[in-house]
Amino acid sequence: MARNSIGKQLVLTSFGESHGKGIGAVLDGFPARFAIDFGRVQQQLNRRRPGQSHLTTQRLESDECQFLSGIFDGQSTGAPIALLIENQDQRSRDYDALAQVYRPGHADRVYDAKYGIRDHRGGGRSSARITAAWVAAGSLAQQYLESKHIVVRAWVHQIEEQYAPEYTALPSIADIDQSAVRCPDPATAMGMQEAIERAHKAGDSVGGSIRFQIEGMQAGIGEPLFGKIQAQLAHYLLNIPATTGIEFGAGFAAARMRGSEHNDAWIHMDGQGIKAASNRAGGSLGGISTGEPLYGLLAFKPVSSIHKTQQTVSREGESVELNIEGRHDPCVLPRAVPIVEAMTALCIMDLYLENALSQS
Amino acid sequence: MARNSIGKQLVLTSFGESHGKGIGAVLDGFPARFAIDFGRVQQQLNRRRPGQSHLTTQRLESDECQFLSGIFDGQSTGAPIALLIENQDQRSRDYDALAQVYRPGHADRVYDAKYGIRDHRGGGRSSARITAAWVAAGSLAQQYLESKHIVVRAWVHQIEEQYAPEYTALPSIADIDQSAVRCPDPATAMGMQEAIERAHKAGDSVGGSIRFQIEGMQAGIGEPLFGKIQAQLAHYLLNIPATTGIEFGAGFAAARMRGSEHNDAWIHMDGQGIKAASNRAGGSLGGISTGEPLYGLLAFKPVSSIHKTQQTVSREGESVELNIEGRHDPCVLPRAVPIVEAMTALCIMDLYLENALSQS
Amino acid sequence: MARNSIGKQLVLTSFGESHGKGIGAVLDGFPARFAIDFGRVQQQLNRRRPGQSHLTTQRLESDECQFLSGIFDGQSTGAPIALLIENQDQRSRDYDALAQVYRPGHADRVYDAKYGIRDHRGGGRSSARITAAWVAAGSLAQQYLESKHIVVRAWVHQIEEQYAPEYTALPSIADIDQSAVRCPDPATAMGMQEAIERAHKAGDSVGGSIRFQIEGMQAGIGEPLFGKIQAQLAHYLLNIPATTGIEFGAGFAAARMRGSEHNDAWIHMDGQGIKAASNRAGGSLGGISTGEPLYGLLAFKPVSSIHKTQQTVSREGESVELNIEGRHDPCVLPRAVPIVEAMTALCIMDLYLENALSQS
Amino acid sequence: MARNSIGKQLVLTSFGESHGKGIGAVLDGFPARFAIDFGRVQQQLNRRRPGQSHLTTQRLESDECQFLSGIFDGQSTGAPIALLIENQDQRSRDYDALAQVYRPGHADRVYDAKYGIRDHRGGGRSSARITAAWVAAGSLAQQYLESKHIVVRAWVHQIEEQYAPEYTALPSIADIDQSAVRCPDPATAMGMQEAIERAHKAGDSVGGSIRFQIEGMQAGIGEPLFGKIQAQLAHYLLNIPATTGIEFGAGFAAARMRGSEHNDAWIHMDGQGIKAASNRAGGSLGGISTGEPLYGLLAFKPVSSIHKTQQTVSREGESVELNIEGRHDPCVLPRAVPIVEAMTALCIMDLYLENALSQS
Repeated sequence: MARNSIGKQLVLTSFGESHGKGIGAVLDGFPARFAIDFGRVQQQLNRRRPGQSHLTTQRLESDECQFLSGIFDGQSTGAPIALLIENQDQRSRDYDALAQVYRPGHADRVYDAKYGIRDHRGGGRSSARITAAWVAAGSLAQQYLESKHIVVRAWVHQIEEQYAPEYTALPSIADIDQSAVRCPDPATAMGMQEAIERAHKAGDSVGGSIRFQIEGMQAGIGEPLFGKIQAQLAHYLLNIPATTGIEFGAGFAAARMRGSEHNDAWIHMDGQGIKAASNRAGGSLGGISTGEPLYGLLAFKPVSSIHKTQQTVSREGESVELNIEGRHDPCVLPRAVPIVEAMTALCIMDLYLENALSQS
Repeated sequence: MARNSIGKQLVLTSFGESHGKGIGAVLDGFPARFAIDFGRVQQQLNRRRPGQSHLTTQRLESDECQFLSGIFDGQSTGAPIALLIENQDQRSRDYDALAQVYRPGHADRVYDAKYGIRDHRGGGRSSARITAAWVAAGSLAQQYLESKHIVVRAWVHQIEEQYAPEYTALPSIADIDQSAVRCPDPATAMGMQEAIERAHKAGDSVGGSIRFQIEGMQAGIGEPLFGKIQAQLAHYLLNIPATTGIEFGAGFAAARMRGSEHNDAWIHMDGQGIKAASNRAGGSLGGISTGEPLYGLLAFKPVSSIHKTQQTVSREGESVELNIEGRHDPCVLPRAVPIVEAMTALCIMDLYLENALSQS
Repeated sequence: MARNSIGKQLVLTSFGESHGKGIGAVLDGFPARFAIDFGRVQQQLNRRRPGQSHLTTQRLESDECQFLSGIFDGQSTGAPIALLIENQDQRSRDYDALAQVYRPGHADRVYDAKYGIRDHRGGGRSSARITAAWVAAGSLAQQYLESKHIVVRAWVHQIEEQYAPEYTALPSIADIDQSAVRCPDPATAMGMQEAIERAHKAGDSVGGSIRFQIEGMQAGIGEPLFGKIQAQLAHYLLNIPATTGIEFGAGFAAARMRGSEHNDAWIHMDGQGIKAASNRAGGSLGGISTGEPLYGLLAFKPVSSIHKTQQTVSREGESVELNIEGRHDPCVLPRAVPIVEAMTALCIMDLYLENALSQS
Repeated sequence: MARNSIGKQLVLTSFGESHGKGIGAVLDGFPARFAIDFGRVQQQLNRRRPGQSHLTTQRLESDECQFLSGIFDGQSTGAPIALLIENQDQRSRDYDALAQVYRPGHADRVYDAKYGIRDHRGGGRSSARITAAWVAAGSLAQQYLESKHIVVRAWVHQIEEQYAPEYTALPSIADIDQSAVRCPDPATAMGMQEAIERAHKAGDSVGGSIRFQIEGMQAGIGEPLFGKIQAQLAHYLLNIPATTGIEFGAGFAAARMRGSEHNDAWIHMDGQGIKAASNRAGGSLGGISTGEPLYGLLAFKPVSSIHKTQQTVSREGESVELNIEGRHDPCVLPRAVPIVEAMTALCIMDLYLENALSQS
């Protein structure tokens, strides 16, 4: 039951529903005396906001973030930072017909099974709208990490058969946002956009995968045994709605390699000390950061709400022919980029803070 | 630092090193009055034990598990269950040469970076030997879950280019253990065995992937938001040494599907109530179990200790030509099967217990 | 840092400052499908509200509680319940003079030492105003417990040399609230009121002690070893501002008794099974409830803000003669009664939920 | 259920029973590269050991502590430190008669109520013997804190009507241990010893209270809101068997003071900066240490096992006349001194480590 908090040193507590008064979060453990750039918070929220391009749902939400506590004269005080984003454009009536029906791919049925009650309006608690508050909190973590020279970034890697080039230098936000689809490679971005439009016209939806990459992290971050850096990241990232898999470094491809192919040799580089000659490990060994970039891939299933007729059942188990109305994204990937960045940053900041204790 | 415990309702605390006095665990939160089958605990330990076949390291450890507390007259008492497996056949001398050298693919360097001290003997705390205690504790969880009609099972799905057939009915342990490689499909098992032997002869190692599957779980298990069942499983399973990725249900393939292809229709089946017509979701929606089998795939990198000469550096950063002696597995997958079962069972039992609170 | 949450199965996360936008809480783990009586929430808030009688500060706050999430159609949904109480009558100007001065008995100096920054307005995060949100959340716990026939109650036991009669049958809320001072014994209440008025006229303040009592709890609640019921209660109650000590059952008097005087004999009572013949243990043994009423006493120091001139120092360490202006309670005890009830109820509900797991 | 761990940054997990194989602990989060003085660990164990003087039980236990993990070359490695103390002189037969009887003052009945099963031998899990492992772990914390110039000490303050002088300079261990009763004031110690002997001859037992004091702690330790230093200490200390109350600073006496009497003035002292002119607050304000000595008092009820005939009932509720055989302390206070030191040190070290994060 009581699992709506995540993190140990930096704890994010999430609350809110899609069509309730609003969605929010409490961020506890944020160090004192950090000057917050509220403009950047809003910028990340805008990247997640509905209605930002023709590729996304047209629900209109300004997603303006109010900070309720923990900040004084623009600085963090060490007290918990509560934030609230009010809901504005909910059209709960659109969902009246769905109160008694279990949509395929959605959590309607399992919430009923678990709780015996369900706020059906807009998906209620299971709506991806609740991630807006994570994005706001995550932006604070990103700002903090950048003050320590650690950069967290995500972009769309694959949609249908369109794949961005493999692991490279970190693209800038400008590179990523040059396309509505948030893939930094222009040609791939074009292909992705067409794939989304094709699916949309067909009343269908697509999934895809997002690459995340962290640079500037020193060796030593991550807590063996049960706080291994990739296990922690997986825990944060697989709580994002619609995710179905995650891999780090060479990932599933590593499972097909031999040791002699996969091992990264240690070398000594002048001025930089000990470094890895390659980075198939993806920036960690034994659950601890190596000092190399940490990267991985996160898979998303296609959006479950489609405009095709589907067969399903009612709460009472009667067969129903379902036609979903309402405003839905044909592909969540472009809007999921800032969510992935947020959860990655919250996770890494949690481990960064904890690492200070190792040799206290 | 203090992350050697995992779980909320059922907490596993891990301790021990490869060449210390022993490795052990404390399992806290195990319900009272459960009659424990100690033979089955040892059976799972035997499946993980070194030296069990020609495919594994020849280190000789009986891996006999002593229970130190929490059990009275063969039953759990509700008090914490401590268990200890003493180390017997450690040959720490084999590692003397490694105290000053950073092996590629191993955690030597990052432990030094993090802690400034390292028990180098046999990998110390980062050795996979510490999972023996997890297997013993996990066997208790498996027994408990079976008393609730929930079965957890794992088997080797892929080694090099040898793949077992896709998602099917649950194989029996006898099916799985009919080959030393622990793949239930005889033809694939043969191919896998040959692949391991080929790599071994070449002084090399291989990785692979393990399928895990849980049957008999009712709808409602898993705690949104930050205790989603697949996020919890990922957290448990990616703390197993050498893992590089995980996917659930259609996983990364789902990222290439359309919504109309991926959605599982709900249907009503006589005598069974509401069921999913297919199971691409892999047994969960919105982080909560659907009542269908939960399945996924866990990727392992190839073993880092190989018998080929490797380039690396010493603690002081000098170039070193490394030849690793000692006894090492050419492939950890066969021995990892009971580890995957253990961590899966511990995770599911934790969430199973918690689910009882949802409608208290 | 990240300690603004309390509880394991039922988690209260607290946020807010005295003169910020408001104070609030998130209550996570509250079971689904519980019909909430919002009137009773407000009733408890009114008992804590400033300005309720001539014995309390005249700051005017309606302390109206908004529920932001976790409730649908008047029932809990199992999702986190967020609540917010906006600040209205803050007069931050009154505190301008205090930004640079360390008030005796207050946390000004230690917040500066710890965080290097401090919201000085009205005590900021260290203000007792933050407990309003605890009272609202605690009222939900009280309602839940009452549905399980468990009643939590508190009243003022002592102010200066005025003592209420010792451990007796549980008084009703009407009995307790018949006096502004919240002592159910009318003669003692009169004496207490006069003591407060005397101190107030002298520009001074008084402390006192509050009795808490829980009835209807079955045997078995409390989690040894580190979740002993009295240790948990102490943890919750000593986080209330101004508390200086706690005792259970015979408490400090037990330290002067002999075993033969203190031991409560077990007897068998027709229709009630095994009972304790007396209750010096105060309702628990070995950290677990016995089924008898659980009772104890909580000590509060006198209010630190007094209207007498005090010697102190500025942030820079210069001697300062301090005259505190503003509106302050001469005695917090009457308003602390609902706070003690709230924290007691939150603690007991947390353990009540957990006890269900003991024999799962 | 799963509450046998305590602490956040430094986590103590406790296991074991009085007459099982042994009792032990895992200490997780202890910083790396700390050289451990094993002699001092044993010294603290000896202060808790049975049979150390004519005032204590004559059960013979060498209480030798084995360290199973987390230490390499005499230094901590950052890995969890497991320790085990084997049981030697259990006479389980002495308890055969008690398997079916509920002893007054003991937890027999409530363990049955909670778990439906009970290891009755020597009190099983509810025996104070389990604190031996806490003492060993606590000694590591004491050593760590002393390396930071923080000293934790406890002594017997009161037995029956014998009271040691009030709050003074910290006595040395030699002062404290000069009497078997562990009161540093010789005259009071003599009176206490006579009181214990009187009770013992009468087949009875006595309680008492222990003072704890911490010196050298800088301002800033303690985590508001729910990690207030006195709330944390209360949580640790009230998990010690037989405790019935705790107070800090002026404690219950503060509840009878006026603000003008209780407030400690801030002054500036040359070379020491800002200090409190008095210390009625007992070393903390708002839950955070002030830099002054932190002190308090912990009450213990008299030992429940007495050699007088008592009335009680069997498991089936039949009246029984009980005569307890076996070896029991007439007073636990002298042996409880190192337990109080251990739990205090573990608590303070946990908060000390965390405080480093406040301004990260």
